[in-house]
Amino acid sequence: MSETPSITAAILVIGDEILSGRTKDKNIGTIADHLFGLGIDLREVRVVPDVPAAIIAALNALRHAYTYVFTTGGIGPTHDDITADAVAEAFGVELREDPRAIALLLERIKPEDLNAARRRMARIPVGAELIKNSISKAPGFMLGNVIVMAGVPAIMAAMLHEVTPRLRTGAQVQVVNIATVDLPEGAYATALGAVAEAHPVISIGSYPSLVDGRFHNQIVLRGRDEPALEAAAAEVRAMLARLKTKN
Amino acid sequence: MSETPSITAAILVIGDEILSGRTKDKNIGTIADHLFGLGIDLREVRVVPDVPAAIIAALNALRHAYTYVFTTGGIGPTHDDITADAVAEAFGVELREDPRAIALLLERIKPEDLNAARRRMARIPVGAELIKNSISKAPGFMLGNVIVMAGVPAIMAAMLHEVTPRLRTGAQVQVVNIATVDLPEGAYATALGAVAEAHPVISIGSYPSLVDGRFHNQIVLRGRDEPALEAAAAEVRAMLARLKTKN
Repeated sequence: MSETPSITAAILVIGDEILSGRTKDKNIGTIADHLFGLGIDLREVRVVPDVPAAIIAALNALRHAYTYVFTTGGIGPTHDDITADAVAEAFGVELREDPRAIALLLERIKPEDLNAARRRMARIPVGAELIKNSISKAPGFMLGNVIVMAGVPAIMAAMLHEVTPRLRTGAQVQVVNIATVDLPEGAYATALGAVAEAHPVISIGSYPSLVDGRFHNQIVLRGRDEPALEAAAAEVRAMLARLKTKN
Repeated sequence: MSETPSITAAILVIGDEILSGRTKDKNIGTIADHLFGLGIDLREVRVVPDVPAAIIAALNALRHAYTYVFTTGGIGPTHDDITADAVAEAFGVELREDPRAIALLLERIKPEDLNAARRRMARIPVGAELIKNSISKAPGFMLGNVIVMAGVPAIMAAMLHEVTPRLRTGAQVQVVNIATVDLPEGAYATALGAVAEAHPVISIGSYPSLVDGRFHNQIVLRGRDEPALEAAAAEVRAMLARLKTKN
């Protein structure tokens, strides 16, 4: 990618259940789509187990490298929910029961049911701002450039929506998709590479897929410079038209 | 996880298309399931863009930390397919056109259609063993502990199947799933934590999901020590039975 670096992000998925294959992650795709719409460049994703050292190491690597880090998973009431602890340790701040979080939990839980396990969900690193959760009330939080969200996809989506107004956003990346069928990538790869080289501010990818035994390709051009994007797309279309004439 | 460390793995997904949200990854779940069945512990996943420095840095971090690294994506004929180059550079070996790979390509491509772009797919790091691909013929490869596969899910699955006999496998992890409905995690979290603490060789997770507005939980116990697994599962079932009696 030769675009000017702008607002960047990483996702940190926390959960043994993804690594064991038991749960198939849906949050990466949801967050990727959302960030793309905001003009924020998602640059890296990591999935780590429910192990404090692994979470802390990944979080520290990512938060220093990107504008934002979005974490999913590990903020429930059970013993394997250790994300808040790991975030507090990574930032070197205390993890304390937060009265604002307790108040949110009490919107859903009767005071007599607010046991020790549920109070766990109100432990928030000092200095963090809460992210409300319209579904189950237990909040996520944002500390510095790290946004901590639930793993349940519907709750994650609610938190992502809730935190969006607090994010700096970038210029929208424009996209042109050019689809081909039964045209092998190898027939146009050299010519496509030449177009890519001629337009360094445009990122050009070729994505094959197999549908009912036939090879489909999507040639995808992406960039923030619209005239350059249009010029590159025109060259790709002309290149494909020449190929069709030849066959 | 307090299991004895055994044969471990990481996945490195290479592709701008996953990070932009355009393509939703399916390979992570497929590989995770497959490795679980082989008794290989998947410990980390990373997704990086089509940027040489990013691929090389991630590959070097992962291949020194785990028994195996499985990469997906970036081995086609177009200019954005740079995985083989990055792997060769990470290992400090040459990338050369491999006669064995050319022979495989010629099973599908006529000699007169074997252009420069298609020859790209026969560039293999020196010292690597090929991984055959029954679908489109262009091979993946295994170099040291790194297994390089295609990104198209059907082709990736064919390569994963093909390389499996070459992998060292571990003892199968046994799993017990205990499902609950309409029972909030917060009602049993403290008791579950006590069971987890009493059985350090068993990994216990609690995974909530939201189905038609109702909270479902899966309490999942995993481990290689069957008697300990059965004992922990019995304690969890007894704990849930006590909760139902109380309500």
